[in-house]
Amino acid sequence: MAEPTDLPSDGPPACLAAFGELARAVLPPDVWDYVDGGSGDEVTLAANRAALDRVAVVPRALRAVESPDLATRLLGHRYAMPVGVAPMAYQRLVHPDGERGMASAAAAAGVPYVASTLGSTPLEEVAATGAEVWFQLYWLRERALVRDLLARVRDAGCRVLVVTVDVPVLGRRLRDLRNAFRLPAEVGAVNLPHGRDDLAHAGTPGVSTVAPDAPFAPALGWDDLAWLRDQTDLPLVVKGVLDPRDAREAVRVGAAGVVVSNHGGRQLDGAPASVTMLPEVVDAVGDRCAVLLDSGIRSGADVLRALALGAAGVLVGRPLLWALAAGGGAGVEAALALLAAELRDALALAGCPDPAAARELRTVPIR
Amino acid sequence: MAEPTDLPSDGPPACLAAFGELARAVLPPDVWDYVDGGSGDEVTLAANRAALDRVAVVPRALRAVESPDLATRLLGHRYAMPVGVAPMAYQRLVHPDGERGMASAAAAAGVPYVASTLGSTPLEEVAATGAEVWFQLYWLRERALVRDLLARVRDAGCRVLVVTVDVPVLGRRLRDLRNAFRLPAEVGAVNLPHGRDDLAHAGTPGVSTVAPDAPFAPALGWDDLAWLRDQTDLPLVVKGVLDPRDAREAVRVGAAGVVVSNHGGRQLDGAPASVTMLPEVVDAVGDRCAVLLDSGIRSGADVLRALALGAAGVLVGRPLLWALAAGGGAGVEAALALLAAELRDALALAGCPDPAAARELRTVPIR
Amino acid sequence: MAEPTDLPSDGPPACLAAFGELARAVLPPDVWDYVDGGSGDEVTLAANRAALDRVAVVPRALRAVESPDLATRLLGHRYAMPVGVAPMAYQRLVHPDGERGMASAAAAAGVPYVASTLGSTPLEEVAATGAEVWFQLYWLRERALVRDLLARVRDAGCRVLVVTVDVPVLGRRLRDLRNAFRLPAEVGAVNLPHGRDDLAHAGTPGVSTVAPDAPFAPALGWDDLAWLRDQTDLPLVVKGVLDPRDAREAVRVGAAGVVVSNHGGRQLDGAPASVTMLPEVVDAVGDRCAVLLDSGIRSGADVLRALALGAAGVLVGRPLLWALAAGGGAGVEAALALLAAELRDALALAGCPDPAAARELRTVPIR
Amino acid sequence: MAEPTDLPSDGPPACLAAFGELARAVLPPDVWDYVDGGSGDEVTLAANRAALDRVAVVPRALRAVESPDLATRLLGHRYAMPVGVAPMAYQRLVHPDGERGMASAAAAAGVPYVASTLGSTPLEEVAATGAEVWFQLYWLRERALVRDLLARVRDAGCRVLVVTVDVPVLGRRLRDLRNAFRLPAEVGAVNLPHGRDDLAHAGTPGVSTVAPDAPFAPALGWDDLAWLRDQTDLPLVVKGVLDPRDAREAVRVGAAGVVVSNHGGRQLDGAPASVTMLPEVVDAVGDRCAVLLDSGIRSGADVLRALALGAAGVLVGRPLLWALAAGGGAGVEAALALLAAELRDALALAGCPDPAAARELRTVPIR
Repeated sequence: MAEPTDLPSDGPPACLAAFGELARAVLPPDVWDYVDGGSGDEVTLAANRAALDRVAVVPRALRAVESPDLATRLLGHRYAMPVGVAPMAYQRLVHPDGERGMASAAAAAGVPYVASTLGSTPLEEVAATGAEVWFQLYWLRERALVRDLLARVRDAGCRVLVVTVDVPVLGRRLRDLRNAFRLPAEVGAVNLPHGRDDLAHAGTPGVSTVAPDAPFAPALGWDDLAWLRDQTDLPLVVKGVLDPRDAREAVRVGAAGVVVSNHGGRQLDGAPASVTMLPEVVDAVGDRCAVLLDSGIRSGADVLRALALGAAGVLVGRPLLWALAAGGGAGVEAALALLAAELRDALALAGCPDPAAARELRTVPIR
Repeated sequence: MAEPTDLPSDGPPACLAAFGELARAVLPPDVWDYVDGGSGDEVTLAANRAALDRVAVVPRALRAVESPDLATRLLGHRYAMPVGVAPMAYQRLVHPDGERGMASAAAAAGVPYVASTLGSTPLEEVAATGAEVWFQLYWLRERALVRDLLARVRDAGCRVLVVTVDVPVLGRRLRDLRNAFRLPAEVGAVNLPHGRDDLAHAGTPGVSTVAPDAPFAPALGWDDLAWLRDQTDLPLVVKGVLDPRDAREAVRVGAAGVVVSNHGGRQLDGAPASVTMLPEVVDAVGDRCAVLLDSGIRSGADVLRALALGAAGVLVGRPLLWALAAGGGAGVEAALALLAAELRDALALAGCPDPAAARELRTVPIR
Repeated sequence: MAEPTDLPSDGPPACLAAFGELARAVLPPDVWDYVDGGSGDEVTLAANRAALDRVAVVPRALRAVESPDLATRLLGHRYAMPVGVAPMAYQRLVHPDGERGMASAAAAAGVPYVASTLGSTPLEEVAATGAEVWFQLYWLRERALVRDLLARVRDAGCRVLVVTVDVPVLGRRLRDLRNAFRLPAEVGAVNLPHGRDDLAHAGTPGVSTVAPDAPFAPALGWDDLAWLRDQTDLPLVVKGVLDPRDAREAVRVGAAGVVVSNHGGRQLDGAPASVTMLPEVVDAVGDRCAVLLDSGIRSGADVLRALALGAAGVLVGRPLLWALAAGGGAGVEAALALLAAELRDALALAGCPDPAAARELRTVPIR
Repeated sequence: MAEPTDLPSDGPPACLAAFGELARAVLPPDVWDYVDGGSGDEVTLAANRAALDRVAVVPRALRAVESPDLATRLLGHRYAMPVGVAPMAYQRLVHPDGERGMASAAAAAGVPYVASTLGSTPLEEVAATGAEVWFQLYWLRERALVRDLLARVRDAGCRVLVVTVDVPVLGRRLRDLRNAFRLPAEVGAVNLPHGRDDLAHAGTPGVSTVAPDAPFAPALGWDDLAWLRDQTDLPLVVKGVLDPRDAREAVRVGAAGVVVSNHGGRQLDGAPASVTMLPEVVDAVGDRCAVLLDSGIRSGADVLRALALGAAGVLVGRPLLWALAAGGGAGVEAALALLAAELRDALALAGCPDPAAARELRTVPIR
């Protein structure tokens, strides 16, 4: 596990990428690769950035916007901006503040924190930070264990249940395979049900945690999702949708939201950039559920791009892990404050009084 | 402030980019970055060039053109070519000749000089050079101060009032933030109303000059523009329009012209290249007002591209600041002479007797 | 001939490209160039990869796939996956295991081995490995010799007759020309008819083996193919089709399959990527014959791309030659096992229970 | 003037680009730049290559082509292949063999040699080589001098009159400007009328030879072309057409052919690649006159691309100047032989018995 680090004292980074440079400097190379890498040839990883950069947003002028109000209602609750902390496994891997630091920063920023099933801190401790917690579920093979987990989720006061559907098997992350990357003994999936501690704690290789011999169920279908919907009162969000047909299916089964995501380029290499599929998903279900985007968001300008293409909000992953590595919870707080400032500026420059107004902006391809 | 420099004695640069190399060599790195940089990831800055390079102009043959006549009527006056000096802040930052040198060169070249609200030389001294001066307005919070400024503009004999509408807040210029760039004490916005000298002179960081605590009004609307129109007899030009809907709005409110501009990639990073939006703006309002282009023009070939896409003319910024840095007013004069020669050749090679004829040329994308 | 080599003992390569790195390290440079190079400026060679990388496959979610079944029926037989070993000349050039090693690995993997007319091991020895052998024919000038060869093909128990139609002359492989590449004396086309041994064995330059003075017939037409069809009971596959009109012609003449191929970028430089033409060929004949793809396949993700675009299967060439060079037959076995694992994962991640299901996936361009 | 050089004795170059490497090694840097450079930012120069590389030609299979016959009828005469030597000024600049060497090689190869008005060898000496000479005209200001030149053209037995229409002024070739490039005293435009020798011989800067103070007429129109047509019995070819409207005009005035050309990227920088405009010009006039292409042809594959897009033939410039520099007339002969061999192979691989058959090939973009 990385030593605790603080942000440099000579002023906070000017952009999220600068947190990445700090993180790269402090993290062991194999941990950096675990965070930074994608699957296969990383074609999809690269496409996420390239596709966002190709989306030009046409700003409006003279819209009498004093200072945009970032507050956004998402899935029944109001947040300080249309941004959430994406679910990320093993956050103690990059800094001892881990999930607690990340969630505290989310609380301070007024944005939701999506707790991962593979969190390295007990869910209850995460919830105790005061963050608005959404829980991300990897489905366990035994239904009883799923029910137990859902009970803990309810008891912890989570707001939303996010089901990740793009990990029937783990993507082939070649960097991890080449590095023979393994989790250190003191970092594990502590929220996994009792009796699985052996697997979660004892040097489990990151790349096989969700392998066929793990306690996760790969062969899930839409009927399973319907069953899950009946187990909880929380709004259900399906994460990992790219095909609009699946988005429609999610709505049919009762999902309150979908996350258009290719898992940050870490699952099917060769999948399209998330943002490439966003407009079609919005067309298909945008009036019936909340459409979020993740994969590749690196700035307030990117959030504006997503909003202009119809997203209700975005989830941000790696940049916040960079910030956690670089400065612990305080680093994440700085990163989220920067992102809010960037988004406020981007909206102002685009003539938008609030995030919703961004939907009226035109986009054109940059070539 | 930079030491005065002269152009090298072994012949003038063969292209505008060569002035950039000279400027880079003489300017302090942070001043160079202030001039050269864009906002955010500089995606829009790069797009401006890439998009222009992608516009291929199909020349016509055997059009019996002896030598093209560059003279152009713009907004009621006749100029030596369809090119103006873009408004640029703090020109004394790069050379002691500053605004006076730049305006004198414009006068010599017979092109309009657009004086910036953030000029570092009193407007009246600029007007005294004999240049055809257009005045660029950043809107002050207090209407009385706007009226005072307009009175000075009228008294100085300015020809056109250019209102910049793409700076509700300043773009995030990461190079300036990283450099902690500040204006030197002897360079400031001397045209700002009395009582603001403290702000304008005393080491104001370039990046926050137009920040919310500055005397500028961010929350402007089209009604404000209508009010402004009633305060002046000068033709009104709206600078910073990218969306054709805004161009139509400008015409509705009485604008005599619009400048299709993304502020040289310095405001909303992620905005499209100016030239990308030019054809649509021309289609929307080209027959009802003068459509100018700025952002990325680096040669006579670029001017031809803009004309072929329907622009009535262009504004040129950075290359003339490079020339000012490299050789003072004489440098700018050389740069404008070069640009005129390049444009004359480009028109001749395209078979155009004058700038207006360029509109009949076809364009195709280079890929 | 290369020395026998084994795979490194510290674990098998994580991707097929890693076999290429191993092969490059062990092969003499001119042999590497012979394997790696394309014709002319290698525009088509590069296009094969670029075009595959541009095909994004949109995965489906929650399809209840436990573990995809890769088994595929191709041309009347069932194979372990929709992949075959492409015909490649002179396999003993890269490793003493040569064709026997390659075919044994194909047998172990349950995939067809396409034996080349220019094999450096007698066809009968290849067949004795137990592999499912398809025979690839370069047409000899004398019909009697073609008949003799077909008799051997039948006696050896080959399953399919593949006729290569894109080598009326050999492509200009500049690397080979610059290297003055020649086959070593001990490697030759031992399946060529008696009396040709001189040509096949004695230092024949690789680049002129199929030259006009060779025993091959360049001026073949569809009538010749009809004649061939009548000489054999084996299903006939036409390899080297890019234009859909030729695919239709092949079906008209009775072909059971076509291979959409540009010969790995080794024949007409300037031909399109195979995958570029695949969808049109599938549209033209996909319901009437088996459409296979080769040229550029480097991973399970690539196989998924081909399947999603309508291919019934793919042939893989260079990567298996790399694997043979790097580790002999055992290397090929490892490479085919890796490819199967990658394809299984890719299908699972795309929500496909089997290769046929991939046809229902959407594809979009990555740009 | 360069020293005479010979091709290396270890075998001829394998591709035309290799002649370029040889030429670069033997030529003084400023002469190399004069040959190699384009105008302005060399956007059009680069586009010529990029656009050709993007044209993929879809080959046909099993067309029973033994060996393609390259012979082609162009403008009333039969040539060994659909390729001509483009008009190029001052060929003695790169090798003492100069125009005589180039023309002799054209004669040996059976292709037309287009003699430039700015040739550095008397036209009559060029004609004496036995080459099929076409004469390229830069129009002189005085009509009487044009008539004198046409008389010499007729007496020399030239076959075709090629009028270059894309040089109303010379393009701005920045490399030449930076190098202050001047012709050496012993190389000049010896075919210019008597009394102009001073201009042609005495150190005339290459970049101003066709400048406004030269004896050339810049302000030509279609009426002038009609006058010219009446002065000669030779077929008239208009070189330098990109816009299909100009191609139609040329046909209307009686031209027997047009050359789609941007002057090798040396005139209007920002003009499209020649090949980009070729299909439209062919559509406009391809059935009424011969459409040739120049600018960027570097291989037989490029010739195939042009033919597939409808060109009747191509002119080749720089590669033959490279070959002349590298090996004198023998170098050019080798280069033309190589080009013929490449074209023969390309046609064979595409299934074309002759150049005309290439028009039936499909083309698709490579991306």
